[in-house]
Amino acid sequence: MRKMYLDHVTSTPTDPRAVEEMLPFFTEHFGSPSSHLHAYGLRVKKAVDESRAKVADLISAKPEEIIFTFTGSESNNLALRGLALANKGKGKHIIISEIEHYSILYTARELEKEGFRVSYLKVNKDGLVDPDDVAKAISEETILVSIMHANNEIGVIEPIQEIGRITKEKGVIFHTDAVATAGIIPVNISELSVDSLSMTSQSFYGPKGIAALYLREGVDIVSILKGGAQEGGRRPGTDNVPGIVGMGKAAELARIEMKSRIEHLIPLRDKIIKELPDRIRYFHFTGHLTKRLPGHVSFWISFAEGETLVLFLNYNGIATASGSACSSPDLQASHVLTAIGVPPDVCHGSITVSFGKDNTMEDVDYFLDTLPKVVERCWNMSPLYEDELKKQKT
Amino acid sequence: MRKMYLDHVTSTPTDPRAVEEMLPFFTEHFGSPSSHLHAYGLRVKKAVDESRAKVADLISAKPEEIIFTFTGSESNNLALRGLALANKGKGKHIIISEIEHYSILYTARELEKEGFRVSYLKVNKDGLVDPDDVAKAISEETILVSIMHANNEIGVIEPIQEIGRITKEKGVIFHTDAVATAGIIPVNISELSVDSLSMTSQSFYGPKGIAALYLREGVDIVSILKGGAQEGGRRPGTDNVPGIVGMGKAAELARIEMKSRIEHLIPLRDKIIKELPDRIRYFHFTGHLTKRLPGHVSFWISFAEGETLVLFLNYNGIATASGSACSSPDLQASHVLTAIGVPPDVCHGSITVSFGKDNTMEDVDYFLDTLPKVVERCWNMSPLYEDELKKQKT
Repeated sequence: MRKMYLDHVTSTPTDPRAVEEMLPFFTEHFGSPSSHLHAYGLRVKKAVDESRAKVADLISAKPEEIIFTFTGSESNNLALRGLALANKGKGKHIIISEIEHYSILYTARELEKEGFRVSYLKVNKDGLVDPDDVAKAISEETILVSIMHANNEIGVIEPIQEIGRITKEKGVIFHTDAVATAGIIPVNISELSVDSLSMTSQSFYGPKGIAALYLREGVDIVSILKGGAQEGGRRPGTDNVPGIVGMGKAAELARIEMKSRIEHLIPLRDKIIKELPDRIRYFHFTGHLTKRLPGHVSFWISFAEGETLVLFLNYNGIATASGSACSSPDLQASHVLTAIGVPPDVCHGSITVSFGKDNTMEDVDYFLDTLPKVVERCWNMSPLYEDELKKQKT
Repeated sequence: MRKMYLDHVTSTPTDPRAVEEMLPFFTEHFGSPSSHLHAYGLRVKKAVDESRAKVADLISAKPEEIIFTFTGSESNNLALRGLALANKGKGKHIIISEIEHYSILYTARELEKEGFRVSYLKVNKDGLVDPDDVAKAISEETILVSIMHANNEIGVIEPIQEIGRITKEKGVIFHTDAVATAGIIPVNISELSVDSLSMTSQSFYGPKGIAALYLREGVDIVSILKGGAQEGGRRPGTDNVPGIVGMGKAAELARIEMKSRIEHLIPLRDKIIKELPDRIRYFHFTGHLTKRLPGHVSFWISFAEGETLVLFLNYNGIATASGSACSSPDLQASHVLTAIGVPPDVCHGSITVSFGKDNTMEDVDYFLDTLPKVVERCWNMSPLYEDELKKQKT
């Protein structure tokens, strides 16, 4: 059976070229970068500095603006909580969108309990935030706006540049969760006018267990962890040195190969977008069809449960995702689907298909052939679909 | 020039057998363990579960009592803050020792700002906490005691078992920072009667970027990060899968080889303890001489600055540490040395020498020959030493 991984938005394989660079940092260069008084520590500190520069380069930032963390979720926690706490003297109002990742959404809810006021901006049916809504929501009390660059579940790319222009003008700090975009599409912190940006290595063929927060020079943040002076005291604890080296190499490769990767991914995505609706009835795309991640297709099908589709696709050798890529903490319907107005009575979970640099047009064809059969099987199990058929006959 | 790494208490090289187990989880088994609806995720989830069992085995815990984190500092933050917040309804008094790691110490200070009361227990000149002091400090308001298992800087092993007996009897939660002991000396959570325990992979020849918190079944904790359901919602964010696999293998090896590693390390340590004082004047050990980590020697020398000694030793090919192994956030004198009553006017930093499983008796001999020469050079630069010589002549 043909096997294919179409869940790159959740995690990518680590590029063998990144693994190769990491290897000496397990067994040979194993000092702690904080131990800069001896050769073992210095050697490692140098490597960490070089990787920091490569990660900075990927988003056109300065190396000293990169704080290494361990996951994208941690970067989001640090940004939202850390920036809120550092700026609470100026005001206690925060603006986020309704479709943010759990790590932003639940941190915001926690901050509400602690006396902050949070505005949750609506998105339109394509999943897009309206920059005018951001402008309208900003008050004297507003200290922080956090809107994700692209949504992992529905693939839509938000108008960050337009929002950044507004926040910059109004003097409000702007964070963006770029976990789904940094290393995949061009991200330039100056063009986007963001003050803070989360990114993760596993999104662009770097290893798991390493991520970063970009924080614009001069912007204050409160560390959410207490301890030593690592990462300027903003992330205490020994750095994941092999991870940092791997992320640095992956960032360098992403920068160099980004254009060709995108040119490879868009035709895969667009063939699906073009052909799938003709092959399956009751088919509904989610997210804007062109303002979206290059390798990303997402949709739902009436009367076919999302998780069941993922299981049946897996049975046929195809790995995809349903709902948010990270496990939902409450096992409830995706807040993203609710936000774009998908009717909960006919939609039970969406499917996210995300291609990677090693997928081929043959994978697309196999997927296009397989999905309709899988959907048919799902329908045959669905009492709702049975009702629908009866309704049509009468 | 002979080169030797004698800074294992800060970080160890990753065992090549652990690296080998990790490798497939970069490029081949790269799914996210949360994506358990498809084969790629399931394969990885299985590996994470197996590693969790191996890490649990090392400290005689149950797999479900292991929360993977990313650093020992993070485990300490999660334990102290998370347990304090989860139990603040019962009382707001916390007891720690004066010689805890920064990640405990500064979290405690932060909790003080938030309305908790913290008692800082003194240690004796050997660095030992008196269990009676713990008993006396516990009041109706006490919810949590946190005493480290062994101190990284002065090597002393605290009487955790005796303290655990007291906290258990009084019904107070007991956390121990076992970053310097787990995987190095026997750690059995039942024998120690601890409810919570921090450990890190890099202490026992596992990779950096992965650590764990043991939390006794039934003990409530509040997550310090918000987000997805990973690690039971107690540590959201994608697991560092290769790191977890490497930590699991290293834990397994540590369990099997612990006895022989200790038998190898003690003679190295004890030869230094026996011979060094005869070779160098003004020599002072720190920490108890037998209740200490097997490969660990620590001391200070009057009129010789600790950091300078580390630099000069490095010049001679020997990597050691001065003060705390993690970088001090305030660049002040070590709180540990102050706590054991080392006079700040004659002691400017201590030296920590920590052997590993691959060091030899030849390393010990080279160190014993080299240190006196290095100390002589330090003294020659010291105006205080000059004064001392003059004083002796008169």
